[in-house]
Amino acid sequence: MYLSEKKFHSIYKKEKSKIDLILKKSLQGRKPSSLYEPGSYILHSEGKRLRPLLVLLSAKAVGGKFNQVYNAAAAVEMLHNFTLVHDDIMDNADKRRGRLTLHKKYDNNTAILVGDSLLSVAYEYLLMDCSANAKEVMGAFTQGLVDVCEGQSMDTDFEMKKRVTIKEYLVMITKKTAAMAEMCCRIGATLGGGSKIQVNSLSNYGKNLGIAFQIQDDLLDISADEKEFGKTIGGDLVEGKKTYLFIKALEKATGEDRKSLSRVISSYGVRKNQVKKYKLLYEKLGVLDESKKEIRKYTNRALNALKIFNSTEQKILYMLADALIERTK
Amino acid sequence: MYLSEKKFHSIYKKEKSKIDLILKKSLQGRKPSSLYEPGSYILHSEGKRLRPLLVLLSAKAVGGKFNQVYNAAAAVEMLHNFTLVHDDIMDNADKRRGRLTLHKKYDNNTAILVGDSLLSVAYEYLLMDCSANAKEVMGAFTQGLVDVCEGQSMDTDFEMKKRVTIKEYLVMITKKTAAMAEMCCRIGATLGGGSKIQVNSLSNYGKNLGIAFQIQDDLLDISADEKEFGKTIGGDLVEGKKTYLFIKALEKATGEDRKSLSRVISSYGVRKNQVKKYKLLYEKLGVLDESKKEIRKYTNRALNALKIFNSTEQKILYMLADALIERTK
Repeated sequence: MYLSEKKFHSIYKKEKSKIDLILKKSLQGRKPSSLYEPGSYILHSEGKRLRPLLVLLSAKAVGGKFNQVYNAAAAVEMLHNFTLVHDDIMDNADKRRGRLTLHKKYDNNTAILVGDSLLSVAYEYLLMDCSANAKEVMGAFTQGLVDVCEGQSMDTDFEMKKRVTIKEYLVMITKKTAAMAEMCCRIGATLGGGSKIQVNSLSNYGKNLGIAFQIQDDLLDISADEKEFGKTIGGDLVEGKKTYLFIKALEKATGEDRKSLSRVISSYGVRKNQVKKYKLLYEKLGVLDESKKEIRKYTNRALNALKIFNSTEQKILYMLADALIERTK
Repeated sequence: MYLSEKKFHSIYKKEKSKIDLILKKSLQGRKPSSLYEPGSYILHSEGKRLRPLLVLLSAKAVGGKFNQVYNAAAAVEMLHNFTLVHDDIMDNADKRRGRLTLHKKYDNNTAILVGDSLLSVAYEYLLMDCSANAKEVMGAFTQGLVDVCEGQSMDTDFEMKKRVTIKEYLVMITKKTAAMAEMCCRIGATLGGGSKIQVNSLSNYGKNLGIAFQIQDDLLDISADEKEFGKTIGGDLVEGKKTYLFIKALEKATGEDRKSLSRVISSYGVRKNQVKKYKLLYEKLGVLDESKKEIRKYTNRALNALKIFNSTEQKILYMLADALIERTK
């Protein structure tokens, strides 16, 4: 069956606006407003809603209907926003999606509690779409939550560590980013009535797509077009983050190059005007190309996991992978 | 059937140590240690483990076995500890159960994340004891979480409010304290295989016991024996908290007494050396006796909810209510 890119984007746009509406309504009229108004502030902010999309498309891929999983789709976005609210406090971030972060608009205490509350409502929404499969679905969601906490803790550990290996990095992003995408596909496929092999295949798709997505994130941070990207290029270097590119560069560098990279660690980051120099070093060491190869590798793994499907739905998931990997921001 | 107080305490002691052991083991060997060591620090601290006890006894009351609900019992204690960790950050509390609070021993960021993680493991443990009843049990647990967030937010609102009514106070403690006790009884009874009427009766018991417990807490804060209590008497007055006693006193006071109480609000609390004066005022206005009457009222409601049971298990729940209401700390 033929599925045009245009059709894919029209499905995405339509479903995204449905999810936006559910999220918008989800906290309306709830009391106390001291809790749910800040919660709404976060849920109203513009996000790509990729995680809900994974839930929807996974349900469809196994023969289910979007209607069966809209609440679950909203739930994963709430869970995602819970992590953003708490992460932003920890990172002391001022802005998110072009607006003030919750703890800056209100205060830390409000942000802690609103994060907790978003998580509670996430479970509530997920339960609405559960029936006999509740244990499995709630288990997958909870595993995603366990993983994301562990991943965040590892990420924080990395800040203080002198040396991080690619293996450790992959464990961290698998927990912090990929586990959530895996979970979205797993609960979508389970709620959609998928067989065990279908559920596992889609989970595998989600996990590998998540890993590719995160490495892509690292790559975009240094190689994106500043205007399209919407953020300053090289922010990860400025913060001294141990990204895929940085770890790989440190592995390959010798002599002066190595010393130069080590200084990023010992100084907990570089000045903005040094970003260009490090980008040139990355290019010299070939780590931009290596990361592209790695992204391709995990994307291919994701696509291979779809082989058991053979329908329009498979094509949609293919296209979603493409759209994510081709993204410029 | 006869059940001695001695036998009750021996059951409590035995089951408490089992719960302590499960909690102690729950995070052992998990990685990263940056997340689970602080988590263990909290779970190892001495608590009364009353909420797990409610789960166990409720399961037993409907003919279930303790063995069916040990993980669920641990789960509610983890949930409780999650709230304590986050509340302590918000209150900027230094000590808890005689030890440094988590954010003082580590830092705020660690405490936020460890709280989140305790909640994730709580869901994980609860799921272990679920089967066909998963949706019901997870729903009750989630409702408890929703309520506790709302209650905490209302409690924070009260700090800034000039006037709080007894009705508002009761809504707040029902959400912040009683909903958790209600939830413990509900999941214990559900997992134990109770009928709908049994589950609802036990939930009702838990809810009313929880309300009585909180008013008792307010009363003890001003009337306990300082040595037994283990905390400074009058802490609530010092912090300017709108307790049952304070709200009731403000309702009844006139003239100079009323002005005196209003100053507690406008000054956000009193000095330590003023506590005695306010205690005398409470006595003069009769609010100590009124709160005792209120505690008795809710305790009786709790006990009335047990009428459909007629066994040793009922007696245990009676005794638990007694032990809680007769407590001195």
